This record gives sequence, C-alpha cells and structure tokens, in this order.
Amino acid sequence: MSFKFTITKKLAGRLGRAGSIETSHGIIETPAFITVGTKATVKSLNSDQIKDIGIQCVLANTYHLYLQPGDEIVKKAGGLHKFMNWQGPMMTDSGGFQVFSLGVAFGKGITKMTKGKELLLPESRPDDEGLAKLVKIDHDGVMFRSHLDGSAHYFTPEKSIDIQHNLGADIIFAFDECTSPTESVHYQSEALDRTHRWAKKSLEHHLKLSAEGSEKSLPPKVLVPALFGIVQGGRHEHLRKESAQYLADLKVDGVGFDGFGIGGSFEKEDMGTAVAWANEILPENKPRHLLGIGEPEDLFQGVENGVDTFDCVAPTRNGRTGTVYTSAGKKHIENACYADDFSPIEKDCRCYTCQNYTCAYINHLFHAKEMLAGTLASIHNLHFVTHLVAGMRQAILNNTFEAYKKGFFDIYRN
Amino acid sequence: MSFKFTITKKLAGRLGRAGSIETSHGIIETPAFITVGTKATVKSLNSDQIKDIGIQCVLANTYHLYLQPGDEIVKKAGGLHKFMNWQGPMMTDSGGFQVFSLGVAFGKGITKMTKGKELLLPESRPDDEGLAKLVKIDHDGVMFRSHLDGSAHYFTPEKSIDIQHNLGADIIFAFDECTSPTESVHYQSEALDRTHRWAKKSLEHHLKLSAEGSEKSLPPKVLVPALFGIVQGGRHEHLRKESAQYLADLKVDGVGFDGFGIGGSFEKEDMGTAVAWANEILPENKPRHLLGIGEPEDLFQGVENGVDTFDCVAPTRNGRTGTVYTSAGKKHIENACYADDFSPIEKDCRCYTCQNYTCAYINHLFHAKEMLAGTLASIHNLHFVTHLVAGMRQAILNNTFEAYKKGFFDIYRN
Repeated sequence: MSFKFTITKKLAGRLGRAGSIETSHGIIETPAFITVGTKATVKSLNSDQIKDIGIQCVLANTYHLYLQPGDEIVKKAGGLHKFMNWQGPMMTDSGGFQVFSLGVAFGKGITKMTKGKELLLPESRPDDEGLAKLVKIDHDGVMFRSHLDGSAHYFTPEKSIDIQHNLGADIIFAFDECTSPTESVHYQSEALDRTHRWAKKSLEHHLKLSAEGSEKSLPPKVLVPALFGIVQGGRHEHLRKESAQYLADLKVDGVGFDGFGIGGSFEKEDMGTAVAWANEILPENKPRHLLGIGEPEDLFQGVENGVDTFDCVAPTRNGRTGTVYTSAGKKHIENACYADDFSPIEKDCRCYTCQNYTCAYINHLFHAKEMLAGTLASIHNLHFVTHLVAGMRQAILNNTFEAYKKGFFDIYRN
Repeated sequence: MSFKFTITKKLAGRLGRAGSIETSHGIIETPAFITVGTKATVKSLNSDQIKDIGIQCVLANTYHLYLQPGDEIVKKAGGLHKFMNWQGPMMTDSGGFQVFSLGVAFGKGITKMTKGKELLLPESRPDDEGLAKLVKIDHDGVMFRSHLDGSAHYFTPEKSIDIQHNLGADIIFAFDECTSPTESVHYQSEALDRTHRWAKKSLEHHLKLSAEGSEKSLPPKVLVPALFGIVQGGRHEHLRKESAQYLADLKVDGVGFDGFGIGGSFEKEDMGTAVAWANEILPENKPRHLLGIGEPEDLFQGVENGVDTFDCVAPTRNGRTGTVYTSAGKKHIENACYADDFSPIEKDCRCYTCQNYTCAYINHLFHAKEMLAGTLASIHNLHFVTHLVAGMRQAILNNTFEAYKKGFFDIYRN
C-alpha cells in the first residue's frame, strides 16, 4: 500500500491544516473537494473534463456499483480506475448510507434523497412501520432491497469490504450505520455500538484480504487500499466523542485505521461544532473525510475544524437542475433574466463553461432540455467548489485564511 | 459574401467530385458529412468535442431556433456562431421539413420523426383528416402549430429567409414544401410548383436583405450568407428533372442560387438514381447538398452521383439510443455480450471514445441511464461517419474510390 498523509501547515488556533495524501494513483493536496462519481461516472463528464476542472479525486458508491454493473465486472476490468478511465486517486464509500436511504426508498415512490439545507438525512426511520420489510438491521449486518428491482441483498462489514476490494479504489471506508438526526439518543447509541462492532470487523476483514493479496504478490495498488473508519453519533457530543475515541484506539494486530470519515447526520447550524468534537480526539497525523458535505459555508466550517477532504453530489445535482454557483451566491440559470444575458455565468471564472459560453446560451439549452445544459453547468459548479476549497488550502499556507473567508462571505449570499 | 466552390478532382465516369467550399468561417473539404446541431447544439457535445471529431460544418434547424430561443435572441448574440461558440462553417435549413413534419405531430402524440430505412418522411399526409387544422398550406406559405406549445405560426419564403439572415449561418436554404413519398404524382406536381414559386421569392428576398446589409456596411460574414435552392419532386424522374432545370435557370437580376439542396423523399433503393437525375442537370460548378441522408450505403450512393455535402441526425440519434457504427455494421452496445467486453467499440478507431473507453463501460453507462453513455456513443458515430466520407474524398483524389467502396462493403453488413 502506498498511502501517506503529510501536514504542511496548521491553521493558527484552529484544528484546520493544509497537507497532502499520497496514494498509488497520485497526490491529493488537502483540504480538497472530492467529486462524486456514483456509478463510476461523474455525471455527464469524461475523464479529460474531470481533470481539466482541477478535480484531484473521485468517490464512487459501493452500493450502486454492487448492484450495477456488479463489483465482479469492475474487478474483471482491472478495477475502477481502468473501468472508468480515471487515473487519479479514488475513494469508495461503504454502502451504508445508500443501504439505509435508497434501500428504504424502494417501492415508496422516493427516488431522491432530500439532502436539503436543514437535515443531511431524510426523516424516515428504518424502523418505521412498513419500512421494516425493506431494511432489516441485525447484529451482523443489514438486509435491504435494491432500489432498481426490489431484489433482496444482505450487507455485512465483510461483504462491504469484499466489494470495495473488488472495486479497487485507493481509499475505502468501514461499513457503518448511518442514522437520521431525528432518531432518539437511545437509538443513536445502539446504532453506534453496531457501527463500532462493524468497524472492527471491517478492519479485520480488510487486513485479512490485504495479507492474502500480498501473499499472492498481486499488484498492491489494486489490492491494498487505505481503510478509513467512520465516526457516527448524530448530534450528541458524548456519542461523537465516544465514537472518535473508539475508532482512534481501535487496533487489530497492532494496526489501526489509515484515516477517518465523519458520517453525516448534523443539523446545519452546529455542524462545525460536531466536527470539532470528533477532530479534537482523532489522531492529528491521519486524514479526515467529511462525508456528503459540499455547501460553501459547510466547507469553510469543515476546513477550519480540521477536515481534510469532502465529497458531495450538490455541485453536479444543482448543475443538472439549472442552479449555478457564483461568488455572489447561486443563480437559477433558467430564469427569464438570463435569456439575453450574453455574459458568462461568472466574469473572470476560468472554467471551460465560462470561457466558452454565455448565460443566454445555457438558459436556452435548459429550456430546450438539451444534454449539454447539465454538462456545462456541472463543469462550472465543480470548478467553483473545487477551487473554493483549493483557495482555502492556499490561504492556510499563506496565513490568510480569515481574510479569504471574510472576502468570500462579504459577497456570497445564500 | 465569401463563398467559393472549387472542384479539385472528378470521379472518372461518374458525377462524383472532390473539392472545397470556402466560407467566411473556413473551408469545407468535400465530399463532407455535415453534423446536425438542431437547437444550436450538436446534442451532448461542446465545441471542442465537435472540432476534435473532425467535423467541418454544423447545420442548425430554422424551425426549432425560431420557436426557441427565437431568432432575435440569436441575432442579438451576434449570430449562431457566437451563440453556440462554433467558429467553423454553418448551415441552416429552410424550416420546411420541420413545418410539415413536427408541425403535424403536435397534439397527436408523435414526438419523433420515423426516418426509418425505407422512407425518408413519415407517411402522414398534411391533408389527412384532422391534420388540416394543424398545417395549412396556401399560395404564399404555411400555417402551422408549434410542436412545443401549439401556438400558431405562419411561414412564408420571406419569413424563412428573414429568420435565416437573423441566425447568420454561412449557407442557408430556400423555403420549400417537403412532401411525403406516398403522395400522388398530382399532389407532388402541385407541391413542386409551390416550391418553385417559393424558391424565387426566397432568392428575391435574400438579395434584397443582402443589398440592405451591404448598404449599412454591416459585417458581410453575418449578413450575406450563400443561398441554396432545393430540388424536390419525390420519386418522379420528370418532376426531379423539371425541378433541377427550373432552379438551375432561376435568376433574379442576373443572380442565381449559390448552390443546391436535394430534398428528401426517396425510396431507399432508387436514391442514387433520383440524385443523379438532379445532378446531371444542376450546374457542375455549384455545390450540392443532400438533405437528411446519413446511412453509409446512402453516403456512397450520394457521393458517386455528385453530392458534395450531407447532413443527418442518424449518428447522434443512434448514439443516444445505444446503436454504434463499426466497420462490420451496427452494434447494439446495450446487449449482454458487451457487459464484460473490455475492448473498444472498434479496434484501431481513433475517436476519443475508442481511445479511452471500453464496450463494457459504455454498456454499463447505458444500463445505468447515465448521460455520458449518449455522449460517448455520439462521438464515436460522428467520427465514424465523418471519416467515412472524408475517406471517400481521399479515395477520389487518389483514384481509388471503387476499391475503397468495395473494401468497405466487403466487411460492412446492414
């Protein structure tokens, strides 16, 4: 395994830091925004477009790829990098989030997660009446139904790690239970026990597979990814701290996690605080990934509270539905006022879209339901968020983080 | 106006020729396949992708752009080239084909033209019961309803030319009535009289607008396109010949058409013959465009019978629905046999798709309904057809056309 985390500079008086994560497929300069490529594709973009935006790393979803095309196909292709023709670093998540969200959604007419402003998980409870049939949690794992065809599947920590080893990303995650923030503290505590038990099993199985891979002398870049444990605990300080401590201390044969994820389930206003609870305890010398977070204000909060990497579908999902990011806030490009606006989405933006196309043209493409509409808006949004976080990195290195943040929010409006 | 057609080499014993069309936005080396960009976008592709494929010229649709975003918006943008960021040569069609096809379709649940193998126009007759209300032809023009919202519009030759001058392509077409091949010879003859009357009016109005543009000293590249008249006449030799002769002879103040279109309405097996009827009469020193034709066998027939340029939606439409072109014939990439085929669509193909992606990956993208699926397949198909015709050009120049054609059909199967 080639995996090394280096801190270059710390943010004075805060938990934030700038550094780098070295993987077999290249270096991620942190803090960094990681782009989501759910089904082994960053929606609508080819590899060159991903690279041109300045994207350093792509995160694909284990749940989706397990169901379609199947992790065995991806393994046969030589792993995700070869399958999707992306030569840079990659992550896969554990599948936990989708098992509990999309699995629940099957047959209920719910096709999209409502990761809105206030809550980062839907309010449906896995144990709500009627849902029990679709998602069933036991001591060892989770029975769920595919959102595609309703077929039954059972994920355990071992299964999730097996799939992720087949997919072959550089960084993978332990299987966890992702709870809704509306759950009782009692339920959160029970779920956290499961998450910790599964974290240990994930680590054990990962080390077993890694050792087998070494014995077979197979190429280490495919077979031995870095494994991150996931801190859960909802909105509860004592649970978050308990979780961070448990995962920080967890060792199997003297080997711990290579880094940590912080699982979603915050209320927006206290996200920074909840992230800090975990990061004050997690070992400073290992990287931390905040799962599913990507709004500008959240990215600043995450970075100053010690998060190194983020992933989120928001830039591409917003892009495909006509919402574009600008330094002044979000614009709805379909609005009539843009029909004859022959300027780019953002003056001075260096993305391919702004260098080549006007608001009027993109407005037309959205009204005409043309595929290029979502592509151009996604390129712009990913460029915006990627470079916003890259700017935070540079600001930490330059000792100008507070000024960079103030400068941003002086203009940006939600 | 900068417009010049040069013949470099003729195909021995046939009507075919290799040459070039010089426009204000660059040279089209002929024979050439022109790519359709209906709504000022080659579906799913940005300008760099269009250029990288080797596409020389894009044809946009007058009917669609008139309805959305409106030709006044495009004019305000500085014309089509600026609006869609395509700096190469462009054409617009007259709107006639869509007025008679899409206009008819509104409210009837027909959303796509069935330009299938046998007929190049749908079998619905504009004067069928119930359709009369939607498309009404009179001496001066056509009343039709928008396929988007049912609103009523009236196209005349003057209106079509006005719109096309606003759009600002390099090559535009006279307004014509595009009939179905199932019409009686009596109806075809009546329709041809209208097409000829409208051709004269188109030319008169075009010259008037061009003169006004010159007086105002406005940039000639936007204001003075080349105008092509359209030969119609269905499957009938005497009508096709009459049409070619009328349009070849037509002059207004001593000025004739800059080139000619040959309008669709053939049966597949006699297309080459019907094209030859027209091209034997049309002046040799002016370029000829065959409208809406793009299947490999039709392209060969067209080229050897003296066609210089072609346009067709087939490569992109097929691409979006998972049919890809190969030297052995078409493949349905969604078929199960490609799920673990880790080779490119076509070995040795130099398109971006084949250089970077496998059949297995594209198969997965189609099954997952990912946008990138249609993009990658469209790139490959456009590359295939563009280079097939470019190869015909080279073969004419090298005196190897028959060998090139034989080599292609020795392998290619429908």
